[in-house]
Amino acid sequence: MADWLEEIGRLARERAKAGLTRQLRPRSAGGAVVDLAGNDYLGLSDHPRVVDGARQALAAYGLGATGSRLVRGSTDAHTALEDALAGWLGAEAALVFSSGYLANLAVVRAVAPVCDLIVSDAYNHASLIDGCRIAGTPVRVAPHNDPAAVAALLDAHPGRAAVITESVFSVDGDLAPLTALHAVTSARGALLIVDDAHALGLLGPHGSGGVTAAGLAGQPDVIITATLSKALGGAGGVVAGPAAFIGHLVDTGRTFIYDTAPPPAVVAGVLAAVEVAQAADDRRAVLFRRGKLIAARMRDAGFPTRDPAAGVLSVPAPGPEAAVAWAANCRDRGVAVGCFRPPSTPDGSSRLRLTVNAGVAEEAFARALTVILECAP
Amino acid sequence: MADWLEEIGRLARERAKAGLTRQLRPRSAGGAVVDLAGNDYLGLSDHPRVVDGARQALAAYGLGATGSRLVRGSTDAHTALEDALAGWLGAEAALVFSSGYLANLAVVRAVAPVCDLIVSDAYNHASLIDGCRIAGTPVRVAPHNDPAAVAALLDAHPGRAAVITESVFSVDGDLAPLTALHAVTSARGALLIVDDAHALGLLGPHGSGGVTAAGLAGQPDVIITATLSKALGGAGGVVAGPAAFIGHLVDTGRTFIYDTAPPPAVVAGVLAAVEVAQAADDRRAVLFRRGKLIAARMRDAGFPTRDPAAGVLSVPAPGPEAAVAWAANCRDRGVAVGCFRPPSTPDGSSRLRLTVNAGVAEEAFARALTVILECAP
Ligand SMILES: Cc1ncc(COP(=O)(O)O)c(C=O)c1O
Ligand SMILES: Cc1ncc(COP(=O)(O)O)c(C=O)c1O
Repeated sequence: MADWLEEIGRLARERAKAGLTRQLRPRSAGGAVVDLAGNDYLGLSDHPRVVDGARQALAAYGLGATGSRLVRGSTDAHTALEDALAGWLGAEAALVFSSGYLANLAVVRAVAPVCDLIVSDAYNHASLIDGCRIAGTPVRVAPHNDPAAVAALLDAHPGRAAVITESVFSVDGDLAPLTALHAVTSARGALLIVDDAHALGLLGPHGSGGVTAAGLAGQPDVIITATLSKALGGAGGVVAGPAAFIGHLVDTGRTFIYDTAPPPAVVAGVLAAVEVAQAADDRRAVLFRRGKLIAARMRDAGFPTRDPAAGVLSVPAPGPEAAVAWAANCRDRGVAVGCFRPPSTPDGSSRLRLTVNAGVAEEAFARALTVILECAP
Repeated sequence: MADWLEEIGRLARERAKAGLTRQLRPRSAGGAVVDLAGNDYLGLSDHPRVVDGARQALAAYGLGATGSRLVRGSTDAHTALEDALAGWLGAEAALVFSSGYLANLAVVRAVAPVCDLIVSDAYNHASLIDGCRIAGTPVRVAPHNDPAAVAALLDAHPGRAAVITESVFSVDGDLAPLTALHAVTSARGALLIVDDAHALGLLGPHGSGGVTAAGLAGQPDVIITATLSKALGGAGGVVAGPAAFIGHLVDTGRTFIYDTAPPPAVVAGVLAAVEVAQAADDRRAVLFRRGKLIAARMRDAGFPTRDPAAGVLSVPAPGPEAAVAWAANCRDRGVAVGCFRPPSTPDGSSRLRLTVNAGVAEEAFARALTVILECAP
């Protein structure tokens, strides 16, 4: 065996000892598992209008976009989605990427030429952290959801800064204090970058997201990023903000310029999802009712669980082994739930991560909740 | 206007003065433009089997994968594609990503724990360069396609290194000396990472790519990356290599773990494309005939143009303005061609970038070639 592979093998054994080996468990189409693990919050991934929108564009354009957005990849479908997203989010302009990950890399890097400090929430997503790394700008990590700490970091810094946060955090599902954060940033001439991945479609008027819910839509010092792969049930990412900033991304965003455009069929399916989501107050009502119900039942069973800000619930487990066994038992009984252990949890504790999917039938949802409680440690 | 936007505006004016403003030109479905700019080399993006494969999976799974591959995103479609790709590429295992860009970020970072130097070809793609930046390992840039220079860099370095190259380079379409590079790396215990984006489907037995064409399939010190968005007409990326390395990516690859899986429909369409591509010696024959024909005609017209190694031709233009005008005139007459100017060209020269699409009808191809020659400066 090549000696580098021996070293790779040694690292794998270390991970195995620490319980950090990950396993792919492919699912079949139409499997009977009830999904309380994915991010299909509104159940739009298989909504007839979404599937139909994708199907029509597939027939019209074929599968791939065949090139970068700047070469052959831009289609009328991309423009239509960008217009719809900008309107929904109350932004001057929007730009679609092939993933939320690449959108985040682009945004953080794009503010680097006009900022000399980035302040990043301690619980920010991997893509935002990698964005800081690629940008090369000095980074200060702020304690989680702590506007006073952000203010202190900004006050200690003479130049212009960008503050980065999620709106609803992906692991714990808690809400960032966006209004307070914006008061801090705007008073100090700093930018506020908000990753709305887990709030878009769920919070705000017509599901327009956490930034609009906080009254910050269209602010000239706020930039929104989001993924199209969660409540919108598709794939891709978006950046929305001032038109001049979007132009800056088109001209200089490496993960935009040097990446193949998302497939027209995916983009068209997501456009249909935006239209459905805007009118889906009924689905949002189901989602919030279910989220509160899960939290109440968990608290009753002795697991201190907060009402979710949107569709993500974090349920503390007694320890890593208990969390893993809990999730495995649920899976064996046909219920998919997420499980986080150190080092994947920002605070070193172990927990179940449950997501609410408003598209799951009421009966299946009730059964899943029973299973989770029956499997509890 | 917010003062950061004034600065963004100033940067935009500087770019405009330097002729570096980029413009999105969306195309409509079924537009009559002849495509000599995209990367749909085999014309598979709208092949009936590809579209049909995607359509069936869309009906079966819905649009989005609804989560990371490690949560809800892995489907039987993903596994089937990975098995097919590993078999085709002659690798022990393969792992699919949502883009080639994210696959490249993952690979470069993944070798960092077992390498203390990265040697990167001067003409490598933006995603490989960003991968080096994220990995944090010391990087030495080697002169383009120069195995002796790579050997010298490795000899000057005591530890283990990884050498990164494309097989067919994306801008000029020239072939890397893979056999010579591998002789250099294997003699020195270094890894060889090859981005096969522009050779997969085109070179090697059954279109299995540049690495197999060079006789390096299955070597334990070679890692292949590729995108599924070019000759395969879809979207996504793949890494193929020793099974232990693929496991390492599953356990530790941030752009794999923290990214939503590519949509099952896209993955299924690409699987159909792999099957078509494996049997597409006829399309490859068309591609190579057309590539040689374009090069010969360009040379006859006084533009020194090499026969392409695969589907990309680089045609020198007298200067940046002439290149832009050439491409614009072609576009006005219904022919899409690429155009590269400094600073997007690695060597500072301006050129047309033409790609061969074997799916374009013979008559349309002939007409496009005439248009390009008639528009020549
Ligand atoms: C907060 C957050 N940002 C960004 C992303 C990345 O988006 P995508 O999966 O579209 O790459 C995710 C999840 O995947 C996320 O949870
Ligand atoms: C050599 C090379 N590597 C990687 C990529 C990125 O692949 P993707 O477009 O799938 O992100 C590209 C082009 O897009 C490329 O030309």
